[in-house]
Amino acid sequence: AREQTPRPGDDVGVLTRLREAVDDVARHSPARMTLVVFASVVGIVTALLSLPIATSTGQRAPFADALFTATSAVCVTGLVTVDTATYWSPFGQVVILVGIQIGGLGVMTLASILGLAVSRRIGLTQKLLAAAETKTTRLGEVGSLLRAVLATIAVIEGALWIVLFPKYLLIGYPLGEALWHSLFQAISIFNNAGFIIEEGGLGQYAGDWWMVMPIIIGAFIGALGFPAILSISRNWRRPRQWSLHAKLTVATSTILWVVGTLAIGLLEWANPRSFGTLPAADRILNAMLAGMTPRSSGFSTVDIATMTESTWFIQDALMFVGGGSASTGGGIKVTTFAVMVLAILAEARGDPDIEAFGRRIAPTVLRLAVAVAFVGATLVGAGTLALLVLTDLHLDVVLFEVISAFATCGLSTGITANLPDSAKYVLSALMFTGRLGTMTMAAALALRDRRRVIRLPEERPTIG
Amino acid sequence: AREQTPRPGDDVGVLTRLREAVDDVARHSPARMTLVVFASVVGIVTALLSLPIATSTGQRAPFADALFTATSAVCVTGLVTVDTATYWSPFGQVVILVGIQIGGLGVMTLASILGLAVSRRIGLTQKLLAAAETKTTRLGEVGSLLRAVLATIAVIEGALWIVLFPKYLLIGYPLGEALWHSLFQAISIFNNAGFIIEEGGLGQYAGDWWMVMPIIIGAFIGALGFPAILSISRNWRRPRQWSLHAKLTVATSTILWVVGTLAIGLLEWANPRSFGTLPAADRILNAMLAGMTPRSSGFSTVDIATMTESTWFIQDALMFVGGGSASTGGGIKVTTFAVMVLAILAEARGDPDIEAFGRRIAPTVLRLAVAVAFVGATLVGAGTLALLVLTDLHLDVVLFEVISAFATCGLSTGITANLPDSAKYVLSALMFTGRLGTMTMAAALALRDRRRVIRLPEERPTIG
Ligand SMILES: [K+]
Ligand SMILES: [K+]
Repeated sequence: AREQTPRPGDDVGVLTRLREAVDDVARHSPARMTLVVFASVVGIVTALLSLPIATSTGQRAPFADALFTATSAVCVTGLVTVDTATYWSPFGQVVILVGIQIGGLGVMTLASILGLAVSRRIGLTQKLLAAAETKTTRLGEVGSLLRAVLATIAVIEGALWIVLFPKYLLIGYPLGEALWHSLFQAISIFNNAGFIIEEGGLGQYAGDWWMVMPIIIGAFIGALGFPAILSISRNWRRPRQWSLHAKLTVATSTILWVVGTLAIGLLEWANPRSFGTLPAADRILNAMLAGMTPRSSGFSTVDIATMTESTWFIQDALMFVGGGSASTGGGIKVTTFAVMVLAILAEARGDPDIEAFGRRIAPTVLRLAVAVAFVGATLVGAGTLALLVLTDLHLDVVLFEVISAFATCGLSTGITANLPDSAKYVLSALMFTGRLGTMTMAAALALRDRRRVIRLPEERPTIG
Repeated sequence: AREQTPRPGDDVGVLTRLREAVDDVARHSPARMTLVVFASVVGIVTALLSLPIATSTGQRAPFADALFTATSAVCVTGLVTVDTATYWSPFGQVVILVGIQIGGLGVMTLASILGLAVSRRIGLTQKLLAAAETKTTRLGEVGSLLRAVLATIAVIEGALWIVLFPKYLLIGYPLGEALWHSLFQAISIFNNAGFIIEEGGLGQYAGDWWMVMPIIIGAFIGALGFPAILSISRNWRRPRQWSLHAKLTVATSTILWVVGTLAIGLLEWANPRSFGTLPAADRILNAMLAGMTPRSSGFSTVDIATMTESTWFIQDALMFVGGGSASTGGGIKVTTFAVMVLAILAEARGDPDIEAFGRRIAPTVLRLAVAVAFVGATLVGAGTLALLVLTDLHLDVVLFEVISAFATCGLSTGITANLPDSAKYVLSALMFTGRLGTMTMAAALALRDRRRVIRLPEERPTIG
């Protein structure tokens, strides 16, 4: 650490130089760094889950299942090829929980810091890059950002833990197990992970408001995403002061929840196989959950296989839209969806600008939205085609499974466990790409970042 | 006709005044006029098909089937609830053929004149509106436009008729029937109508290049659309001189055809139920047809029901994209698809502009493309949900049928005839909307055409 002559003000400690090296990579290709970090975390979790002590039987888990579970955990998806409650040992469950928390936290910070850099949003990124370049305010800036993220996580996961702990005591768990179960559940809920360690699943809590309401509320908040939560928490009494992003995210999330709840409630109200035999209040509770969790939480008190195909199709749409930007939710994101809807309204009205909440939205934002949605649809299409070829399953269950993986939702009609390994790898790749973000993936794989100086002459092809 | 004092140069004949009245409506709401004209034509054809003489048995056709067939004919779709060859009388078949030709011709002229006005393309519309306003060059302009459309139709339908007539003679049809069958087939092919009056369907011609190649070539040209055909025919030896629209249309159509042919060819090569038992050359022919006709022709020599579900899914995608703008093809149109792909490439590369063939494409074009694609996807989604609720069919066949109707393609896995009337009405509405064009429909139904003077301040929500 003394090979170079230190310049004035240089701190030549090893940690500082490592940090500078990482910053350098992040500045030149933040997307590629995100990709590498993510893949490494998945690799480590896969390795840990491949240890014999990770399973309850002490036998080594097959590679396809270890990789699938690791990807599902780190990408906070919740799709499982083996039952989390019975297949994995306590060690394995702790590994999964840590994977979920790293995936949720890591993606939150990386996605809000690096992901925003990819999408070229002005505020935060430029501040960060400027801080990195001047090397003076950098630590302070990054530190305060991380502190805000960590505070949010601690407050909300803590609140969920406190609410759920007495519930598990009441159910009859001993103190230690109640603490463990409520902690696992709290982390899984806020990170929209969809993993559960209840033997027999959540079906036993179908009418239990104390268990279900925390899932609904925690999933809603977790799926808002860090940029929205930060803006709201700074002005939580004055919604008019929220950023456009926060307003759009809250409004769209709420509308999708209400629409999903009403639609699924109507379609399943009289279905005796799903929740049609429960008391009316519990049917409403289950409809509220079924309308919320497709947008990436993935918890379900009702076996999806018992629902109607119409409900599946509505859930397909909700899953594809997903959660908020830089959230623990997946999909193409609610703002992407909202911007496209606003563009269509502007087009139909003949307005020159796309507008929302008294602001206009730049055409370049629409272009990014189109790219995200279109690439997402293409990935879902390619994944669906792959599973149709690799299995003899039909489109209804295949499309549901593929969108669930891409949107890191984790709901399933029940086909996951019996898929061939090849299909498990396809779904793993979808979860990974879906969690990383399609455009981050595209930027990470891009071979060049061409920028033209000369603008070409304009010509308008006919559309539609 | 003498109530007003004629101004100098005024022609006060009844026809002129009627033309002025129509022009006035067209100028103020061309979309609404298109809607009304189209609905009227469908209504008249429905009424004619409801006459007892329209069926071969002399019994009045049920309303749902008359409406469905009329919509399918006028919207050049080709989905049928009853067998065209056997259910309808010669009178009924003539009505259907006239409906196809009006639908194809009418939509060609109306879509190229009014549809372009809706999409606010500069060249043609402004010329037309200017001509209408000055009332001097109007007739000349419109006349030359119509003459070009009519010449195109006459040349291509005539060529198809001449090629197919001896074929039908060789098959063994008497002179009159050979003339009629080849005429029907020629009109059905060029208008991408997908209707056939061969008893037993096209399956008997699965290895017949003389019958299949005219379908492939005629469908390709018909699906290019009038603006592209006009630009190409003016400079057919100098592709560099073609309009950007023509270049994009030809390039995208060709790429989609090749990709579709290869994919379907591979998936069905060894499928004995579809064309896997034919000689290799005939398998290639059938793959070429199966790769072309989903983009809205709708002819098939192979029963779709015998193909793999993977093939259905590829055809779903091809049908959704559809043909060229202002063509006899449906779907969201190839240029819509191309502009979105180009936008994604620009986004991934970090280019400020969307570019193609040495031209840049304005952001407002992308906005229109997004609107068309997104509204199309929404309509397909709504139609699919409706059919899932109304029938107990599964997603694979329902999605195929709904996209086929929306994209006025006409391919079917075989469920059309057994659908309940409610589902037939849903598909009729989809065919109508799909043929009219989603944005024309939106503009026709729009209650206001708001235009702001003040621009709002800009703010960028996070996307993806
Ligand atoms: K999830
Ligand atoms: K057709």
